[in-house]
Amino acid sequence: MNTHSHPRPVPEHLPAFAQVRFVLSHTTHTGNIGAAARAIKNMGFGRLVLVNPKHGVDAQAISLASGAADVLEAAHICSSLSDALAGCQAAVAVTARWREFSLPFADARQSTLHMAQVLVDTPTAEVAFVFGTEMSGLSNEEVLQCSQCCHIPANPVYSSLNLAQAVQLISYEMRMALGAGLAASPYPPNPVAPVDDMERFYQHLEQTLVDIGFLNPKQPKKLMPRLRRLFARAGVEKLELDILRGVLAAVQKSRAL
Amino acid sequence: MNTHSHPRPVPEHLPAFAQVRFVLSHTTHTGNIGAAARAIKNMGFGRLVLVNPKHGVDAQAISLASGAADVLEAAHICSSLSDALAGCQAAVAVTARWREFSLPFADARQSTLHMAQVLVDTPTAEVAFVFGTEMSGLSNEEVLQCSQCCHIPANPVYSSLNLAQAVQLISYEMRMALGAGLAASPYPPNPVAPVDDMERFYQHLEQTLVDIGFLNPKQPKKLMPRLRRLFARAGVEKLELDILRGVLAAVQKSRAL
Repeated sequence: MNTHSHPRPVPEHLPAFAQVRFVLSHTTHTGNIGAAARAIKNMGFGRLVLVNPKHGVDAQAISLASGAADVLEAAHICSSLSDALAGCQAAVAVTARWREFSLPFADARQSTLHMAQVLVDTPTAEVAFVFGTEMSGLSNEEVLQCSQCCHIPANPVYSSLNLAQAVQLISYEMRMALGAGLAASPYPPNPVAPVDDMERFYQHLEQTLVDIGFLNPKQPKKLMPRLRRLFARAGVEKLELDILRGVLAAVQKSRAL
Repeated sequence: MNTHSHPRPVPEHLPAFAQVRFVLSHTTHTGNIGAAARAIKNMGFGRLVLVNPKHGVDAQAISLASGAADVLEAAHICSSLSDALAGCQAAVAVTARWREFSLPFADARQSTLHMAQVLVDTPTAEVAFVFGTEMSGLSNEEVLQCSQCCHIPANPVYSSLNLAQAVQLISYEMRMALGAGLAASPYPPNPVAPVDDMERFYQHLEQTLVDIGFLNPKQPKKLMPRLRRLFARAGVEKLELDILRGVLAAVQKSRAL
């Protein structure tokens, strides 16, 4: 037995646990929704968000939720990932696949510590972990709506976990991270822009690039993914985003003259 | 994003991964056997041991094993926990419940680090993680055949994880622990006695206590659990066990004179 002291106990009643969303996108098996509900409740969380599930909550979901029917009942169903992430300070795309336009990548432990630190530094923040559909995971478009990617360390020749198992591991690591005794940064907070502000910025940017004839909507190529990746890597701060939006508005206004 | 360096990669081909057993005792749902097979293969392990499963491997198990049918096929079926633990240097009882005669208790992270350290210090060792039946977990008798207890940190008001989810978390933590860059102890190894040597000692001890009239087999009370707990807490070394066995033999021999 080693002599490490236990991390301090994690009080479930802290708001932090209610500020974490588990977003399942385009789930095809309702059993996984139920098992995910149980998994997050086991770890002290309760906010499940479903983006366009193929089938809604049914008997199979309720059966696998076991004692977590309350989490299923409170699950929020959205028609888009943007809706699911509305109001989030940060969103983590959980994905096993490397992509050409990958966001910053961390493993599950690093990523959950980072999200816990966000909640410590900005006590009103909300954060989300986003999980893709069973067979193919998250689309590139979904990944690029998040602020970072996270992978679960796994067997390189057999790395695809069952969806509910992935939810279990991430919720467990987030519980451990929230109990890790993180301290607020000694520096004045300089929070990055929330996910949906970034999303509005990207839409504004894309429209502006179309307006000025730089982006051909019929042949967009990889321009927007490249730009999303760049800004995500930078971690745009709120003030910086105001500046960027101002630049875009000025560009559009100058053309209207 | 924090700047922690990644832990060094975990090479699956290292013997250590083949020296870890996942023992499921008295499983009632075959789907859990399949899901557990997938979970351990996802984390680079492959040794599943089933003690008296209610039903053997069936279509439901194979379906939930997904790409891990090889692990299911290679699963070893035993009729007792002692058989399942034969040859193990250390065995961890995974349990959420505190018990009156509890062994040393650690959380999943501490416990897997400890088991990884056992494999580093004794490169030929084998270790096991033992999981109980779905509804009620491990019996006290099963727990007392192990060398320590481990609990998965969870929501205190809803702490009972699905069996396969518990296997997923422990196998994940064991993978992380094996990649944690543990160093062999600088001190000469003083290995504790293997699990089945301890089991034979306990049987010898019990028989001796009966022989001398100290233990009434019809009213055993809590004597053996108390003694098992004492020796497990001490961590009996091999040489010490030889001494203890010698003492028992001497006691029995003296009565035969």
